[in-house]
Amino acid sequence: MTLRIGSIIAALGGELQGDPERLITRLAPLETATASELSFLVDPRLAEALDRTQAGCIVVGPELAAAARARGDCIVAAHPHLYFARLTQLWRRQHGGAPRPGIHPSAVVEADAQIDPSASIGPQCFVGSGARIGAGTVLKARVTVEAGCVIGARCLVQSGAVIGGDGFGFAPDAGRWERIEQLGAVRIGDDVEIGANTCVDRGALDDTVIEDGVKLDNLIQIGHNCHIGRHTAMAGCVGVAGSARIGAHCTVGGAGMILGHLTIADHVHISSASIVTRSILKPGHYTGFFPIDDNANWEKNAATLKHIHALRERVKRLEARIKGGANA
Amino acid sequence: MTLRIGSIIAALGGELQGDPERLITRLAPLETATASELSFLVDPRLAEALDRTQAGCIVVGPELAAAARARGDCIVAAHPHLYFARLTQLWRRQHGGAPRPGIHPSAVVEADAQIDPSASIGPQCFVGSGARIGAGTVLKARVTVEAGCVIGARCLVQSGAVIGGDGFGFAPDAGRWERIEQLGAVRIGDDVEIGANTCVDRGALDDTVIEDGVKLDNLIQIGHNCHIGRHTAMAGCVGVAGSARIGAHCTVGGAGMILGHLTIADHVHISSASIVTRSILKPGHYTGFFPIDDNANWEKNAATLKHIHALRERVKRLEARIKGGANA
Amino acid sequence: MTLRIGSIIAALGGELQGDPERLITRLAPLETATASELSFLVDPRLAEALDRTQAGCIVVGPELAAAARARGDCIVAAHPHLYFARLTQLWRRQHGGAPRPGIHPSAVVEADAQIDPSASIGPQCFVGSGARIGAGTVLKARVTVEAGCVIGARCLVQSGAVIGGDGFGFAPDAGRWERIEQLGAVRIGDDVEIGANTCVDRGALDDTVIEDGVKLDNLIQIGHNCHIGRHTAMAGCVGVAGSARIGAHCTVGGAGMILGHLTIADHVHISSASIVTRSILKPGHYTGFFPIDDNANWEKNAATLKHIHALRERVKRLEARIKGGANA
Repeated sequence: MTLRIGSIIAALGGELQGDPERLITRLAPLETATASELSFLVDPRLAEALDRTQAGCIVVGPELAAAARARGDCIVAAHPHLYFARLTQLWRRQHGGAPRPGIHPSAVVEADAQIDPSASIGPQCFVGSGARIGAGTVLKARVTVEAGCVIGARCLVQSGAVIGGDGFGFAPDAGRWERIEQLGAVRIGDDVEIGANTCVDRGALDDTVIEDGVKLDNLIQIGHNCHIGRHTAMAGCVGVAGSARIGAHCTVGGAGMILGHLTIADHVHISSASIVTRSILKPGHYTGFFPIDDNANWEKNAATLKHIHALRERVKRLEARIKGGANA
Repeated sequence: MTLRIGSIIAALGGELQGDPERLITRLAPLETATASELSFLVDPRLAEALDRTQAGCIVVGPELAAAARARGDCIVAAHPHLYFARLTQLWRRQHGGAPRPGIHPSAVVEADAQIDPSASIGPQCFVGSGARIGAGTVLKARVTVEAGCVIGARCLVQSGAVIGGDGFGFAPDAGRWERIEQLGAVRIGDDVEIGANTCVDRGALDDTVIEDGVKLDNLIQIGHNCHIGRHTAMAGCVGVAGSARIGAHCTVGGAGMILGHLTIADHVHISSASIVTRSILKPGHYTGFFPIDDNANWEKNAATLKHIHALRERVKRLEARIKGGANA
Repeated sequence: MTLRIGSIIAALGGELQGDPERLITRLAPLETATASELSFLVDPRLAEALDRTQAGCIVVGPELAAAARARGDCIVAAHPHLYFARLTQLWRRQHGGAPRPGIHPSAVVEADAQIDPSASIGPQCFVGSGARIGAGTVLKARVTVEAGCVIGARCLVQSGAVIGGDGFGFAPDAGRWERIEQLGAVRIGDDVEIGANTCVDRGALDDTVIEDGVKLDNLIQIGHNCHIGRHTAMAGCVGVAGSARIGAHCTVGGAGMILGHLTIADHVHISSASIVTRSILKPGHYTGFFPIDDNANWEKNAATLKHIHALRERVKRLEARIKGGANA
C-alpha cells in the first residue's frame, strides 16, 4: 500500500513543500513515523515534536510551515486536522476495506423492510419489519434495527448496536410492574454514527429522534423518547435517560449521565463522568465528579464530606461569635 | 390502525364520558395528540395541560374527571397510569407486531435445550445445551442464553442480551491470574424483562438468581452469584458486582453501582449514579454523587474538596481558641 | 457427575487428610455445601465458618489444617485459592462443557482470516478479513472480530464482545464532524479474557494493544490506541478513553473511568467508580467517588459542597481575625 504525495495533493489540495514523487507507505503518529510515512501536527504548542520525528512528510498549518519545511517535506493546509481526516478517508478508499453495498447472506431482513441498494447490511444483522435504511448507510456485523425504525443516508452503525429495542416503561400495580408497550420507533437522520453495542430505545408513543450528524461512541444508552440535536457528539459509556431533549452541537464526555425529562440547550459541553440532574439552558461547560486522590486521603475527605453541612453551620457560629466579640 | 373507544371500554373497563363510536387512530402524548388520538393524564398537578391538548379522548383518574369532561371525551379509571399500560398492550395485540411463537430458522438452539412451544426465539439467538426457556417468553433478535441457564414464563429479553456468560473470577498466582471456572448457571423467574445488551453472569459455584417480576433496563451488568429479589427494577447502565444480594421491590437509578458481597434490604431505592459501598439494611432512599456545576466553580470546589479534612481540623482549632478565649 | 478425592490429589497434588475414596458430587460454597460436596476456605479470619459447614471435604491452607481436620476431611494446599481455581478447571475438563475446536457452521469467517485449528469459533461469530485467532482461543457465541485484528493463544472472549470496532475520531469542520478513518487494528496477546459485550476499538493509525494475561470483565469500553499492560485486570463497566497507556499488574474496580492520553504506572489500583483525570506515575491505591448517604443528608451536603471554596475563604478570614486578635 503506497500513495504518491503528488496524488494526495491532487485529491485534497494543500500546498506541498517538497517532492511530489515521494511514496508514502502509511499514515503514522509523529512519534513512530518513519521516513516513508506521513504524519500531521495540529497544535503549534507542540512544535518541538518536529525536531524529533522521522516522518517523511508532515501535514501542518500555515503557522508551522517554516519550521516544518526546515526539517523536510511538508504539506501546508489551512486546517491540518481536517486535512488529515480527509487523508484517512482517501487512504481507505485507495486501499480497500470499504464495505460493499448489499445485504450479507447471513443477515436477516424482514420482507417489508426497505434497504437502499447502496446501503451495506453486514453479517448477521437483523432488520425488522417496516424498517428503512438509507443510501450509503453501513451496518457492520451483528447490528439490530427493530421494526419500523428509520436510519438516514451515509450513517455508520458499529457491530452489536441495537436500534429500536423497547423503552423501559412500566406502571406500578400493587408492588408489581405492568408493562407499557413501546409503540413509537427510532428515527435517525443522515451522517449519524452509532458505536459498538450502543442502544437507542424506541419511543413509548412518539419516536426517539437522533438528528443529522450526531456521533455516538460505544456502549451508550439512549432512552425512549429522547431527542438529540444536530452534530451533538457523545463519548463512550454515556447514558441518557428517557425523554431528555438535548440540543445541537453539544458534547458529552465519557460516562456522562443525563437524567430523564431534562432539556439541554445547544452548545452545552458536559465533562466526563458528570451527572446532569437539572435542565441546562445556557451554553457552557459543566462538570461534576469527585476528584481522584490517594486512597488514604480520599477516605479522610469522604468521611468529612458527610459532615460538611454541619461544618458550615459551625463556621457560621464562629463568625457570629467573632463578630459579636468584635462589636463588643 | 384504529380502535373504537367502545371496544376499549369493553376490553379494559373504565367509565366512558363521551362517544363510544369515536375511532382512535393512535395513542399519543398530551402535547402532540390530535382529535383522533387518545392520551392520558396521571398527575393532578398537571391538570392545566388539559386546556392545551387537542386529544380526542383522555384517560384520567376520578379527581380529574370533571375537568377532563369539561373539555371533551374522557375515560375515568381508578388508576389511569395502569389503565394506559393495559391500553398499550391492547393496542399491540390489535395491531400486530407481537412476536410469533417458535424458533426463528436463523437461531442456533442446542439439541438438548428445552424451548416451550409458546416461547419465541428470535433471529440469530443462541440457546446453549441444557438451557430452558419458559412458556410465552420472548427472546428478541441476537440474544445469548448460555448452557444450563433457565428463564421462566412470560419473560422478555431484548436484543444483544447475554445470559450466562462466565463470571469474572480469578485466583492470583505470582502476578498472573488463574481462571476459576464458573460452574453455576443463571436462574431467571417469571415475568422478568432484560434490556438490550444487558449481561447476567453465571454463578461460580451456585447459580445467579433473578426472581419473578424483576425489570432490568439496557446495558446493565449483573455479576456472578448475585441474587435479585422480586419486582426490583434497575434503570440503564447499572452495575451490580458479584455476590450482591438485593432485596425485593428495590429500584436502582441509571448508572447506579452496587459493589460485591453487599446485602440490600427490600424497598431500598438508590438514586442514579450513586455508588453503594456498604450493605443497606433499612428501607429508604439513598444517594451519593457529586452535583454538577459550571466547570469553573467545580474546579475551585473540587480543589478545596481535597483539603476538607484539613479544613475541619482548622475549624476545630478555631473553636478551641474561641472557646478558650470565651472562658478566659 | 462425581470425582474421587483420590483422583483430585493425583491430578493437583495437595495433602489429603481423610478418605481418598470419598466421592464428590459438586464444588460448593461453604454455606451451602453438603456432605457429598467439596468446598474451600482461604481466609484464616473466617475459620469459624468451619464449625457451621456441612461440606464433605474442605481445601484449606496450612494454618487452618488442624482446625479443618478436627471437623472432617480436608485437603491442605500451600495456596488454597489457587488450588481451588485449578480444581474448577479439573471439574470442567472431567464433566464436559469445554468448547470444541473448530468453526461453528453459523459463524461467518472471511476467507483470508487465519483461525488456528485448535481454536473454537462459536455460533454466529463474525471474523473479518485478515484477522488471526491463536491456538486454543475460544470465541463464545456472537463475538465480532473485525478485519485485521489479532488475538493470541488461549484467550477467551465472551458472547457479544466487539474487537476492532472503529475508534471514535472526528475532526471538527465548521460545526460538523469529519470522520477520521481508523486505519489501525487491535492486537491482543496470549491468555487474555474479554467479557460479554465488551468493546475494544481499533487504533486510528497505530494498533490498540492488550498485552498477555489481561482480564477484562463485561461491558468495558477500551478506546482506540490504548495500550494495556500485562496481567492488568478490569471489572465490569470500566471505560478507558483513547490513547491511554496503562501499566502491567494494575486493577480497575467496576465502573472506574480513565480519561484519554493518560499514563498509568505498573501496579496502580483504581477503586470502583473512580475517575482518573491525570496520569498516575506512582504505584498505589487511588480513589474518588462521592460516598453514598441517606438522601436527605446527601441533599444538604451536596448543596454545601457547591460553596466549600467560599467556606474555606471564610475559615481563612476567621483565622486571620483570631490571629490578629491574639497578636494584639
